[in-house]
Amino acid sequence: MMTDIQENKSINFLTSLFTRSPLQLNALHESDAEIIHPWNDDEHLLALTTDSIVEEISTGLYDDPYLIGWMTVMVNLSDLAAVGAKPIGILVSEIFPKNFGESSIICLQKGIQDACSICGVHILGGDTNYGEQLVLTGSALGFMPTGQVITRKGYHPGDIVYSTSRLGVGNSFVLAHFLGSHKQHISYKPVARLKEGQILRGIATACMDTSDGVLSTLDQLMRINKYGFQLDADWELALDKQSRHLIKEIGFPSWLLLAGEHGEFELLFTLPPDREQQFLHDAALSNFYPVKLGRVIPETTIYVPIDGENIAIDTAWIRNLNRQVNSNIRQYIHNLLFYHDQLKKGAYNYATT
Amino acid sequence: MMTDIQENKSINFLTSLFTRSPLQLNALHESDAEIIHPWNDDEHLLALTTDSIVEEISTGLYDDPYLIGWMTVMVNLSDLAAVGAKPIGILVSEIFPKNFGESSIICLQKGIQDACSICGVHILGGDTNYGEQLVLTGSALGFMPTGQVITRKGYHPGDIVYSTSRLGVGNSFVLAHFLGSHKQHISYKPVARLKEGQILRGIATACMDTSDGVLSTLDQLMRINKYGFQLDADWELALDKQSRHLIKEIGFPSWLLLAGEHGEFELLFTLPPDREQQFLHDAALSNFYPVKLGRVIPETTIYVPIDGENIAIDTAWIRNLNRQVNSNIRQYIHNLLFYHDQLKKGAYNYATT
Repeated sequence: MMTDIQENKSINFLTSLFTRSPLQLNALHESDAEIIHPWNDDEHLLALTTDSIVEEISTGLYDDPYLIGWMTVMVNLSDLAAVGAKPIGILVSEIFPKNFGESSIICLQKGIQDACSICGVHILGGDTNYGEQLVLTGSALGFMPTGQVITRKGYHPGDIVYSTSRLGVGNSFVLAHFLGSHKQHISYKPVARLKEGQILRGIATACMDTSDGVLSTLDQLMRINKYGFQLDADWELALDKQSRHLIKEIGFPSWLLLAGEHGEFELLFTLPPDREQQFLHDAALSNFYPVKLGRVIPETTIYVPIDGENIAIDTAWIRNLNRQVNSNIRQYIHNLLFYHDQLKKGAYNYATT
Repeated sequence: MMTDIQENKSINFLTSLFTRSPLQLNALHESDAEIIHPWNDDEHLLALTTDSIVEEISTGLYDDPYLIGWMTVMVNLSDLAAVGAKPIGILVSEIFPKNFGESSIICLQKGIQDACSICGVHILGGDTNYGEQLVLTGSALGFMPTGQVITRKGYHPGDIVYSTSRLGVGNSFVLAHFLGSHKQHISYKPVARLKEGQILRGIATACMDTSDGVLSTLDQLMRINKYGFQLDADWELALDKQSRHLIKEIGFPSWLLLAGEHGEFELLFTLPPDREQQFLHDAALSNFYPVKLGRVIPETTIYVPIDGENIAIDTAWIRNLNRQVNSNIRQYIHNLLFYHDQLKKGAYNYATT
């Protein structure tokens, strides 16, 4: 029996008050973007998503208007990438506080434009208002061929888990930002894995972006598919260099780079083992070099080898931690470190089955 | 030479920092929704729009969560209606302040669901965050047959101006709300004119919704088309009963129901005079009874007959008034009344040509 995730419960409650569209192909929670059959067209499906940037701004994590603009685009395009969609365009609703000056606005718009540019996408329209705090909401639209949809659901025990690229920068950015002097070392500017998502069509058995961090993503996949994961003994090789460097420098356990909920916007995806070699070969032809993380196991637990011991991580506790500490990031880091200390004492080896 | 509209200038500035999509068929300002040619499909175009509800909440005008939910849906569907699109669905991003309780959330969701229901539309997905103030952002997607797009541009002198139904309730709601005791008399619950918009395809020479009130809508149409309007002598018959009753009761001039910027979400549209009779006949078969307002004239002025005198209204001044008074609604009403007094003294008969 898995512990409930508070965020999932909120979403269930909010959507329980709505009726479901007959045009919608995905079930609740089971896809990064909504998948729509818009009219009598047998060839195309639409992918649709919306995401607001609010708490990253109010907690002080995003204090650079350029980054805020950039992320407004990327968080939405990343959802399209995870379902294998090709983007059509983006809408953006901007709420400016009264004291948000023209130079900040220019910076923000440049972040939006540069993020669009690098992904070959355009802002199609938007809305502007004035409010008490800066809020950016993007909505992205894309399409994909019918019959090649990737969702979060569909893997089986034995499938291999990959990431589109190296992991950890989302959380090392948070650590650098809140622990002070290391800030300059971490360059955080994720690019939605659109090309990669399209390559995964018809091949990946499931896919989800790491917008909430790696362990949260694996936990959500586990809840939907009822199968957990065993990370490889050498999973630390999947961390990017700057994140590995930082975590070593500050003396934190490196698995916290997977645990924190600020993501790197890679795609985690699963493959049947018999398709692995052909896939890696084809991907390399497109300069796409996925990073192996582990495999699907026939139980609902996530095992991470930590300091030579195979630990069952209580991912539900981790996913509920942000609410528990009321989005206080310092407290969040403190509690994760405490959890690690308990692990070392053998107190928390947590298996749900 | 028409005076600049501050809001248009802001939009021009914000969008000047973005590149335009080759998939987008409408020019800036010239359409209520973005019109997109999504892929190599000769039969369908997509219509896309986003709108946030912020200032109506922070000024206290919308204090009922049900109405806030309802309007989140309707402001977006109304944009689809104005381009003749059929809705595919809506996304909604919700930002809740910490003190927004469960009963308020249920009320808000019910407003969203009821508005969707009455329009035969569904919420496809969304995002939820916590913030300092309540903000609701909707994004709506629809489609229409290629070649039957309606935009804000295309009318000529002599064309007749119609509204989809009677006008005034947006502003009488504001007056009742801020002048106190009359509140209970005004029922404000606009329904997006989706059926009507689809009937107007291929017939209306231009169309725009009255989300910002009637005179703002006419002013925006005038700027795009370079032709103004002469309202009919009996335009007051186009006002709805409850608004006419309220404005009489409080002793305000009735043209303020056209001037205020809180709209009734009707569609204003233009027709060539030789298509008028056939159109009215066909519309009646669908129980659609448009209300005649006036006609297009070969000059860039908007004339409103007031107390037997044909007055050229300074619609640019009216459109810039909300910014000038910093969204203070009482001051806004006060300044409009002052403007009216000056009109009566003959001081402001304002023609731009």
